[in-house]
Amino acid sequence: MPQYTPPFNDIQFVLHDLLQVERGLKSIPAHADLDAITLDAILEEAGKFASEVVFPLNQVGDREGCTFKDGVVTTPTGFKEAYRRYVETGWPSLSCDPEYGGQGLPELVNTAVMEMFNSANQAWTMYPGLSHGAYEALIAHGTPEQKQVYLPRLVAGEWTGTMCLTEAHCGTDLGLVKTRAVADPGGGYRLTGTKIFISAGEHDMAENIVHLVLARLPDAPPGTKGISMFVVPKFIPDAAGRVGERNAVQCGSIEHKMGIHGNATCVINLDGAQGWMVGEPNRGLNAMFVMMNGARIGVGMQSLGLAEAAYQNARAYARERLQMRSLSGPKAPDKPADPIIVHPDVRRMLLTQKAYIEAARAFTYWIGLNIDIEQRHPDEQARREAADLVSLLTPVLKGFITDNGYESTTLAMQVFGGHGYITENGMEQFVRDARINMIYEGTNTVQALDLLARKVLADQGRKLIKLGGLIQGFIQAQSERPAMREFVDPLAELLGEVHKLTVEIGRKAMQDPEEVGAAATPFLRVIGHVVFAWFWARMARVAMDRIEAGEADPVYRSKLATARFYYARLLPEAQFRIREIRTGAGSLMALEEREF
Amino acid sequence: MPQYTPPFNDIQFVLHDLLQVERGLKSIPAHADLDAITLDAILEEAGKFASEVVFPLNQVGDREGCTFKDGVVTTPTGFKEAYRRYVETGWPSLSCDPEYGGQGLPELVNTAVMEMFNSANQAWTMYPGLSHGAYEALIAHGTPEQKQVYLPRLVAGEWTGTMCLTEAHCGTDLGLVKTRAVADPGGGYRLTGTKIFISAGEHDMAENIVHLVLARLPDAPPGTKGISMFVVPKFIPDAAGRVGERNAVQCGSIEHKMGIHGNATCVINLDGAQGWMVGEPNRGLNAMFVMMNGARIGVGMQSLGLAEAAYQNARAYARERLQMRSLSGPKAPDKPADPIIVHPDVRRMLLTQKAYIEAARAFTYWIGLNIDIEQRHPDEQARREAADLVSLLTPVLKGFITDNGYESTTLAMQVFGGHGYITENGMEQFVRDARINMIYEGTNTVQALDLLARKVLADQGRKLIKLGGLIQGFIQAQSERPAMREFVDPLAELLGEVHKLTVEIGRKAMQDPEEVGAAATPFLRVIGHVVFAWFWARMARVAMDRIEAGEADPVYRSKLATARFYYARLLPEAQFRIREIRTGAGSLMALEEREF
Repeated sequence: MPQYTPPFNDIQFVLHDLLQVERGLKSIPAHADLDAITLDAILEEAGKFASEVVFPLNQVGDREGCTFKDGVVTTPTGFKEAYRRYVETGWPSLSCDPEYGGQGLPELVNTAVMEMFNSANQAWTMYPGLSHGAYEALIAHGTPEQKQVYLPRLVAGEWTGTMCLTEAHCGTDLGLVKTRAVADPGGGYRLTGTKIFISAGEHDMAENIVHLVLARLPDAPPGTKGISMFVVPKFIPDAAGRVGERNAVQCGSIEHKMGIHGNATCVINLDGAQGWMVGEPNRGLNAMFVMMNGARIGVGMQSLGLAEAAYQNARAYARERLQMRSLSGPKAPDKPADPIIVHPDVRRMLLTQKAYIEAARAFTYWIGLNIDIEQRHPDEQARREAADLVSLLTPVLKGFITDNGYESTTLAMQVFGGHGYITENGMEQFVRDARINMIYEGTNTVQALDLLARKVLADQGRKLIKLGGLIQGFIQAQSERPAMREFVDPLAELLGEVHKLTVEIGRKAMQDPEEVGAAATPFLRVIGHVVFAWFWARMARVAMDRIEAGEADPVYRSKLATARFYYARLLPEAQFRIREIRTGAGSLMALEEREF
Repeated sequence: MPQYTPPFNDIQFVLHDLLQVERGLKSIPAHADLDAITLDAILEEAGKFASEVVFPLNQVGDREGCTFKDGVVTTPTGFKEAYRRYVETGWPSLSCDPEYGGQGLPELVNTAVMEMFNSANQAWTMYPGLSHGAYEALIAHGTPEQKQVYLPRLVAGEWTGTMCLTEAHCGTDLGLVKTRAVADPGGGYRLTGTKIFISAGEHDMAENIVHLVLARLPDAPPGTKGISMFVVPKFIPDAAGRVGERNAVQCGSIEHKMGIHGNATCVINLDGAQGWMVGEPNRGLNAMFVMMNGARIGVGMQSLGLAEAAYQNARAYARERLQMRSLSGPKAPDKPADPIIVHPDVRRMLLTQKAYIEAARAFTYWIGLNIDIEQRHPDEQARREAADLVSLLTPVLKGFITDNGYESTTLAMQVFGGHGYITENGMEQFVRDARINMIYEGTNTVQALDLLARKVLADQGRKLIKLGGLIQGFIQAQSERPAMREFVDPLAELLGEVHKLTVEIGRKAMQDPEEVGAAATPFLRVIGHVVFAWFWARMARVAMDRIEAGEADPVYRSKLATARFYYARLLPEAQFRIREIRTGAGSLMALEEREF
């Protein structure tokens, strides 16, 4: 049976030692009162709930899955009850607007909470996670009446939300959406069509389900510019938010899939279902992007969560499992063999996970803080700069962390040897669950194209230069610290090379647009490493300072050693990817279709 | 529903164009009569059986799994019937010794046949696959009486075999085996203990199951030098090979696992079971190595097979699925969107699979041919050289191809987007099945240590230099062909660097033995790339010659383009790994256990 303990030590290192979030939050009047003690207390409670209530349902959910009968979805044993307690304890409202019953806490808090819930049980956490997305889309684009009806229920967790985008013939290419919306003489619209892959699309955990649906108006222009967004509730609420009549939106079936068995992936049939437009006609994709960006960050957090849980178990196993002697002589001579954590290749596997996880935590929490600045900072310039960073780095967060998360869970399973392949031990579930994160909310190819084409090239590199400026500032600030050169020198070298590389890609893309698609995936990995190298250097600096100040906590020695491991063994991938990018599109485009 | 078509085109390219196996087999009197037409006809029949009889059971096997009740294992619907037909058609006896009823065909034929059966259904193919291992161990180490009793039945496929090595507390570290064997006054031995993870350990497909079991004699020295091998049949045969009384060897339970559901992974309880020693006392691990080396090559073939099947489906999907327009303008303007095979990143994913698969096929078939030379060539020098190459490259074949196979099946699934995560579509099964191959028959860490410590360093690099000599010879032979420089130059550069690197590792290892463990895994990837780069250059040369000779078959253009892709985008990993190795053991060993 796998175990999970919330990693408070490292969370506190990131929040307080590294990001000094209290200082950041102080500059945002809405959050200026949140002190470190309250923050830590909230996280401790969340961690307790995640590890004690939600985690014990992780294997049950995988084993039982959801069941579907006559349009009704039954979630696995315990899911409903845990959700009821989650709602009662007020977790859904954490970072929501007090105007609708929220607690008005920073998004940063939600980020850390989501990490722990995803470690505990990704499939379960998707139910409340999607509600938060619906909340964000409605608060940004809903009419005042829509907000009054839906937001208090979503904030309270009484209702949950979904995103209904995909259809059988289109996922990435939403311009092909066929679901139709026709104005209803009685008000609102009537929607007809079939959506697939709708996570949490039907279940027994909440009183109502709020679908946000992409569809076309009869006169809509073709393609992505003819898509509108509609709110389509399972039960139609009155103005006071009391549920009424059942809407013509039905779950047609649920999918059998590789993982996240506890979450119902639904076919949703709209059969003249009543809906109300959210935002402007034909601008639905824009409105949905609010939700999608939040969801992409959410998916990154899922992989961070899974990787952390898998790592904890791999580490524990590596300390206990006795097998072979260390090549440099017995380390546990009193036992029949040494614990496998003494072997360099087992350490390589563990440290790869650790280095990816801890950098991802620093990176995502920093993004969480920047979302708070973007949303609530009084200074417009500060808001804009934070928005630029969040926009640039959202695809990196999603793509890089989910790819690393799959590798990490795969390695964690490998540490278990044959025992990792056995379902009971729980390791292979982490891999199966982690696999979806590279696909949904935009495949990692889509993330890579979003980064390179939209966020970098279409922007003339403006946002990337801004990020480079931050990193450059950090590098310069280390000039008085010769001990930091082992990190700062390679970081500076990589940064310089990335700027050159980006200009090269831009130039080649003007000759041949296929160069963008050919460079995108390795480019995302390069930028991911730039960000992780920056965070590892920053963490190394904090650790050096603390060690020098005489602090004995092993976390600082561990940080410094992990930073060195990252620079030695993982960062060099960036050079390999740069080399790959420079070979251009030629080798990809040379084959005719029949030659594959 | 996934599809599978035996890749005869590429198999013929490898056998005839590239390896010119007829010429190779001519030099072995036992196989000199086998002409190309007969060889192709056998493979065509095997491919037909694999794709028409065995492949349709692949998803059924995954869905149903094996069931266990009261010591009896029932295999999935159709498994037993397919096995009966397999036996009737004579496939088990293909490359077995005519003295025991075999057809005496080259191991090479078996290699190609096994690729196709593994593409069709890895879980099913493991039942006959393990029998072949038992056959090899008994023919090498059995007494004349054991051979007379067991071999004809194994060759006919009437009985199947297993390897009983692992116990709950030991897999990699077989020195810890606890199962005990005590001489039986009535003859033979009585074995007591519990084995786990015994593939095909119990089933309903054959009349008898022949377990080869590692156990300790009462006076055995501790560790690996105190292990003996025993044959323990499920039913005790008489001297004529007629099954008699049930032996005290029982299946205690079967495992629930990530994949290969159709194969029963058994706990095997030996409760004073009758057994007979195979080979010498305390030399069992040696005897078992015959079987293990064959099994390691077999596992590589499993991953090649799975990767091929997954690739075929990803390619078909990429040609059909319409999504987005090509960045360089519509390619299917009459359709609502372009087929995704036009997009560079989809091509990157497909070509990665193709490049790994085709190089693996060339490499493994060449190893198959070398096994035939090792076993049957009249010239001792030729036999010894072939044996050295097979010994050096067995861990590379197992480790490199199974790692690449996992990546390939993961990419094939990714090409399907969300549809890849859905069980019905069959793609996620390929990933789950492929995952075990990195673990069993020695984890890939064990393979890497076997390669670097035993096959390279303990041998003073002698075998590696022999391989280098072959590659050097090829490079020199290309000097009259300037068009080959794009392949030959980087290959020569890499080869030179690998020789330097190996000397460096050897020198560092004398100071610190942990350097071996720290270098092993990336070193295996480097050597894998050396081999694949060599084969891609050889295949490019063949393709160039054929194109120049005016042959219009697109396979040659495809080969040349894939070789260029491999050199541009995959081979540079070798440099990254070399850099990783040079950072040494320091960053791995710096952390204390509590600092993880």
